[in-house]
Amino acid sequence: MATATLSSTSLTYLHFHSTSFWRRRFSISCAAYSDRCIYNFAAGPATLPESVLLKAQSELYNYRGSGMSIMEMSHRGKEFDAVIKKAESDLRSLLSISDDFAVLFLQGGATTQFSAVPLNLCMPEDSADYIVTGSWSVRALKEAQKFCKPNVIWSGKSEKYTRICSFDEIPQTLDAKYLHICGNETVQGVEFKDYPNPMNKSSVLVADMSSNFCSKPVDISKFGVIYAGAQKNVGPSGVTIVIIRRALLGHAQPIAPVMLDYKAQADTDSLYNTPPCFAIYICSLVFEYLLHQGGLVAMAKKNEKKAGVLYDAIDASGEFYVSHVEKSVRSLMNVPFTLQKSELEKKFIEEAAKEGMVQLKGHLSVGGVRASIYNAMPLAGVEKLVAFMKDFQARHP
Amino acid sequence: MATATLSSTSLTYLHFHSTSFWRRRFSISCAAYSDRCIYNFAAGPATLPESVLLKAQSELYNYRGSGMSIMEMSHRGKEFDAVIKKAESDLRSLLSISDDFAVLFLQGGATTQFSAVPLNLCMPEDSADYIVTGSWSVRALKEAQKFCKPNVIWSGKSEKYTRICSFDEIPQTLDAKYLHICGNETVQGVEFKDYPNPMNKSSVLVADMSSNFCSKPVDISKFGVIYAGAQKNVGPSGVTIVIIRRALLGHAQPIAPVMLDYKAQADTDSLYNTPPCFAIYICSLVFEYLLHQGGLVAMAKKNEKKAGVLYDAIDASGEFYVSHVEKSVRSLMNVPFTLQKSELEKKFIEEAAKEGMVQLKGHLSVGGVRASIYNAMPLAGVEKLVAFMKDFQARHP
Repeated sequence: MATATLSSTSLTYLHFHSTSFWRRRFSISCAAYSDRCIYNFAAGPATLPESVLLKAQSELYNYRGSGMSIMEMSHRGKEFDAVIKKAESDLRSLLSISDDFAVLFLQGGATTQFSAVPLNLCMPEDSADYIVTGSWSVRALKEAQKFCKPNVIWSGKSEKYTRICSFDEIPQTLDAKYLHICGNETVQGVEFKDYPNPMNKSSVLVADMSSNFCSKPVDISKFGVIYAGAQKNVGPSGVTIVIIRRALLGHAQPIAPVMLDYKAQADTDSLYNTPPCFAIYICSLVFEYLLHQGGLVAMAKKNEKKAGVLYDAIDASGEFYVSHVEKSVRSLMNVPFTLQKSELEKKFIEEAAKEGMVQLKGHLSVGGVRASIYNAMPLAGVEKLVAFMKDFQARHP
Repeated sequence: MATATLSSTSLTYLHFHSTSFWRRRFSISCAAYSDRCIYNFAAGPATLPESVLLKAQSELYNYRGSGMSIMEMSHRGKEFDAVIKKAESDLRSLLSISDDFAVLFLQGGATTQFSAVPLNLCMPEDSADYIVTGSWSVRALKEAQKFCKPNVIWSGKSEKYTRICSFDEIPQTLDAKYLHICGNETVQGVEFKDYPNPMNKSSVLVADMSSNFCSKPVDISKFGVIYAGAQKNVGPSGVTIVIIRRALLGHAQPIAPVMLDYKAQADTDSLYNTPPCFAIYICSLVFEYLLHQGGLVAMAKKNEKKAGVLYDAIDASGEFYVSHVEKSVRSLMNVPFTLQKSELEKKFIEEAAKEGMVQLKGHLSVGGVRASIYNAMPLAGVEKLVAFMKDFQARHP
């Protein structure tokens, strides 16, 4: 947020004069005033579509004439039942999810799924394969070590997680119950462009798609489990979406907490206990928005365009700006880069914030700069960042 | 909700003419027009304070001049940091929570805590004592059986959960690690009015307070752990509050999923991963509201008054309406009752809904009628229900 990096004086100026401020007051489109707009490049929670926020605001106090807020309603009542059913059916449309898969709306973030996946797919003595491509797959692996025998079949650590292996170069474990990947690493900015196939028939592919979920079409039929925290591309924090092949249900370890047992959740349509109703409601508005945008093929085009503009600017900078990620696996969602003159990075981030481009600081563990450009980041935001990058470079020959 | 029980015709009438409708449009106080008001007696998610909903609506699109929604902001940024810190400090004020206790804002509901409590306080071979007073303590017990050796030291089952034992009548297990109770049973309507002390010094008292949390003052120092889903008295669904004695942190079982490890959450001030930011924000508004109401002493008086009016009406009905719960432990939050002429119950619930008093159906497992009257239910709502009960009785001699 701007406020995290600005003095109260410049803050007042920024908020009063920023298009974002006026946009939020009168919903003028941001692009029209992009020179004055606050653009939030946070890695998540992140920007939500304007129209979703306006609709949520208009309905918050009196939900569609009911005289109640959606937050006050029974999760087993008629209104919320319609909300969660529409959320599921719109998500099924967006990703062409067949009925072979259950769609669950859960709590606890991807970190809870790091435990739930081995607890549901393995017994303690079973093995599972992990491809380690960055900070999040490291965390998933560490958690799995409590519940099964995970093998790291490839790690990018020695190359500082700047590439992803070619799948034929890695031998898989014969009896692995699943093969786990992180579809997109928010910290290092590497993203799978295609997916490995588990070697043995009894194994399934499992993916943490928290940071690229619904940013592009995905062939769900290749997967056993896909899980994603909503707070990057499809909603606020507080809801985690799990897509699981129904054939995998019902094999949880006896020590699996019931809330982490996919079958208990699937059998009750995610209502084993009270779900995060408001967060699910916001996701339902975002899914509707994504369908209106033309679905995930259209979103993928927009996301490729945005990322292309930014990576091109980096590559054309004569190494003033440096992307360390192998081009073939550069993330379309999180674009980390450094300045060759690293002493300028702090100044770059501060000046960008003063221009209304906020949350550009790279993750503490790697430093540098990071621009997260999820579904709801408009092209205008990326174009403004690129213009600033060129200007900053010109001022620092 | 009204809509769950009304025809679309009567619904239109009800919404158009209900004070709730106008209240939601022009924020006229409900009491002023209580004859036309929708009152939501749902067991949870439940009614929220008007002023909280209005403030949340006004801030949803542009949070306090930031140009962003609170839903879009980094959970590690300046604004959300202020929200969660204020939520914690206001809750500490409301309940006089000393620094010997950590306050956590988690996900997964009380059902997740049914697992987390034994996973954090016991090893698998350890024993724990459970007092079973209704549906929720049965569920807590069942889940604990996965993770330790729980003993049922008293159960109200044979008396259909209509009373709570006197504590000197029950022998406790010598080496129990904790004594678990459910402070209020939403289904059966029994509530602890005082609390047992664990027999041995090494044991602690643990309470599920989901349905009476912040409805009255509580001496926190008597407890080792208190947990509560927010969606009854203090917020929307999607956030679970845990108050735990710091001395108990750091002893989780090796198989505890990291998100269920209280120490991991306490060490990171509930930010081990992305928390349910919006739900925590709503809780912070409710805590502020409760402080403005005069704190929990004032809320307890209001809640006693509301419950008194309703139980008096039941007791004065000459057994037309029957409360089955022993008077000394009647819940101030959930008031279940039956009609002596049980064939009239369906009619009673339907007519009440037509009068704008909704969600009065008893839990499926017990039937009958249930009025949930949490913090945000105004006295006017209870008075309207009582007037209806008298009228209904008069019409069915």
